[in-house]
Amino acid sequence: MFDTQNMKTAMDQLGTQARDTSKQIALASTEQKNRALSVAADALRSRTAEILAANAQDLEFSAKKGLSPAMIDRLLLDADGIEAIATGLEAIAALPDPVGDELARWDRPNGLNISRVRVPLGVIGVIYESRPNVTADAGALCLKAGNAVILRGGSESFYSSGAIHACLVEGLKEAGLPEQAIQLVPTRDRAAVGCMLTMSGTIDIIVPRGGRSLVERVQNESRVPVFAHLEGICHVYVHEEADPDKARAIAVNAKMRRTGICGAAETLLVDQADAHMPPAILHDLVDMGCEIRGDSEVQKIDARVAPATEEDWHAEYLDAIIAVKVVENLDAALSHIEAYSSNHTDSIITENAAAAETFLNRVDSAIVMHNASTQFADGGEFGMGAEIGIATGRIHARGPVGLEQLTSFKYQVRGSGQTRR
Amino acid sequence: MFDTQNMKTAMDQLGTQARDTSKQIALASTEQKNRALSVAADALRSRTAEILAANAQDLEFSAKKGLSPAMIDRLLLDADGIEAIATGLEAIAALPDPVGDELARWDRPNGLNISRVRVPLGVIGVIYESRPNVTADAGALCLKAGNAVILRGGSESFYSSGAIHACLVEGLKEAGLPEQAIQLVPTRDRAAVGCMLTMSGTIDIIVPRGGRSLVERVQNESRVPVFAHLEGICHVYVHEEADPDKARAIAVNAKMRRTGICGAAETLLVDQADAHMPPAILHDLVDMGCEIRGDSEVQKIDARVAPATEEDWHAEYLDAIIAVKVVENLDAALSHIEAYSSNHTDSIITENAAAAETFLNRVDSAIVMHNASTQFADGGEFGMGAEIGIATGRIHARGPVGLEQLTSFKYQVRGSGQTRR
Repeated sequence: MFDTQNMKTAMDQLGTQARDTSKQIALASTEQKNRALSVAADALRSRTAEILAANAQDLEFSAKKGLSPAMIDRLLLDADGIEAIATGLEAIAALPDPVGDELARWDRPNGLNISRVRVPLGVIGVIYESRPNVTADAGALCLKAGNAVILRGGSESFYSSGAIHACLVEGLKEAGLPEQAIQLVPTRDRAAVGCMLTMSGTIDIIVPRGGRSLVERVQNESRVPVFAHLEGICHVYVHEEADPDKARAIAVNAKMRRTGICGAAETLLVDQADAHMPPAILHDLVDMGCEIRGDSEVQKIDARVAPATEEDWHAEYLDAIIAVKVVENLDAALSHIEAYSSNHTDSIITENAAAAETFLNRVDSAIVMHNASTQFADGGEFGMGAEIGIATGRIHARGPVGLEQLTSFKYQVRGSGQTRR
Repeated sequence: MFDTQNMKTAMDQLGTQARDTSKQIALASTEQKNRALSVAADALRSRTAEILAANAQDLEFSAKKGLSPAMIDRLLLDADGIEAIATGLEAIAALPDPVGDELARWDRPNGLNISRVRVPLGVIGVIYESRPNVTADAGALCLKAGNAVILRGGSESFYSSGAIHACLVEGLKEAGLPEQAIQLVPTRDRAAVGCMLTMSGTIDIIVPRGGRSLVERVQNESRVPVFAHLEGICHVYVHEEADPDKARAIAVNAKMRRTGICGAAETLLVDQADAHMPPAILHDLVDMGCEIRGDSEVQKIDARVAPATEEDWHAEYLDAIIAVKVVENLDAALSHIEAYSSNHTDSIITENAAAAETFLNRVDSAIVMHNASTQFADGGEFGMGAEIGIATGRIHARGPVGLEQLTSFKYQVRGSGQTRR
């Protein structure tokens, strides 16, 4: 069936199947899609032993390959993990169906009635590393938004992803939906990824889920539009009129709650005028085991501060390290952020409403915040229910990519015989 | 300055200037942008003689090159044409500024207030053929939406576009805006186009304006997302329950009002059951000088019908020619449209509301219509004020691309000290 000797032909066939199926899945009822997801959740539960066995195969393969403990950790499934995946599917089933939503409607003087209605995007390609749960999450989100999806999981999670995918297919079949609605690329061969990135005729959007090197490769090579962020160099700026307690709590939370997520703060900017605040914040951070790299001003405040180099302002540590800089004022903070931000999420801490509005308007990032932790940069926290990722591009989706962002729209024009003059 | 010997370097410099300027222009006030446009309109009027002289230079060059009369016609400017361009700029100035519009706002249970606010897209590249007026129209639309723009006009309109561009620059200067907000590629060398298509780091969107070969080249080669339509193979489907008068009026208008625009109908589908309607419609069309190419059923109706081949169902004639096919029923019409439509604009004529809704929901085109002429597929007719083109892609913009489609958005999150658990 899938001939890895003729990868391009095999992948094109997958693409054509997805494209054809996308037309059917676009018209699927909410009930059908939800049924597919809830049957898939049940299948995950009833096939737990099977999935764990597949996962054990993957772990064995990965141990031989000498995968890092962090990667092994992401790959590892247990019964609780499978239950969480099943619950995730049910949560997506419970979300409102975006397809068919009326986004706008208006009348023209000639009597034409025009509405803008949400429709699925079409075919989505998801390329991810060895996190088997993405198979279910991404597959379910794309399906719920009425899309066909081609999933390409990391080679180390080959069997786990396959076992989870089988549950999704069972759900589709039970719901009377075509099983090609959610396809998993059935090969470990990395050439398949290269093929996906050039399938601009059959794939509408590529979503990479993984580390910097994966996203970078996809962004550089893809001929298909990409929803992604390369990195999250998020800033917390403590303005001179910040409330000291809020500044401490937010700075510490933004950095330390979880250091490995894209919304974690990487740089702290502090106004020169704040003589009292930096010591307390730095103290809290050091106490929690955070390494601090600061400019000369910051080094004067606390002897435990290591000197920051130019590289630190560009760094996405994803670790308990933070770069700290003293800035002259709001304008200097804005300039620093313009120069170094990855346009993901940046936050100002201040009690000065005008300064806050200036920051919210002038910082050109997908998410800009006032008196809130950058760790809120998340589709769930935004109330979108679930997200497939966060995008820093400017086209179509920006910020958390949830169900609505996985749709397009069309115009419906209702007339009564109008002709154009 | 612009070194055509080092085209890539020269174009990259243009791109960097655009990118840098885009940050300033994104923050420009509505008043500033409108002032730039109205000063540019005045400049067009006061420099009419200069522009006509530049146009004469272009016409001389084009005559030597042996340009077709149709292309000469598009290139030719007169005083009325320049006045129309000036009026067009004033009309864009009068449109509401989309930047800063609040698209949505909601509160989270933790007290965070989230809003989705319109921001400019960034840098737009417009590649067009020798229609000097596009210099003004496209430049003005991009500016009004807060973007920097790089314009690349056809080589035959080099001097005319340059003279019009000078007026735009005068407007920018008068309004205190950076003149790099609207840049015109200062060379006829086609290599500049190839450079633009790979400038994915500095150009956010490419908009091609011109014939099929230009759009095809851009779509095939561009590494930058493209807003465009390759062709407009628009269908009018006369359902068995159509009102005969509406069917005649709409079919004739959709085909013959202007045959050269993308929203002109190219194929007429008629239900088998309509014994009485096709003859009248065909009669009207033939009377107006339209050539009819029909399947065998249609040929039986009217002896003047030429036989249609498979090619005719794929044809965008842009001329007084129409392909006509008898279909069994609504499903057959939907199948034909799915197979042959270019997903631009398709219309059903019927008095049966259920059939109309089925058509509006199932036809996967940017614009779907009921009892209206496909020639309404136009941003002005939609009430958008002006458009830079029509897109048939599914990403970001679909249908008429007006000011709103030339923007992106960001999330503003307002808190009171929230940290994430």
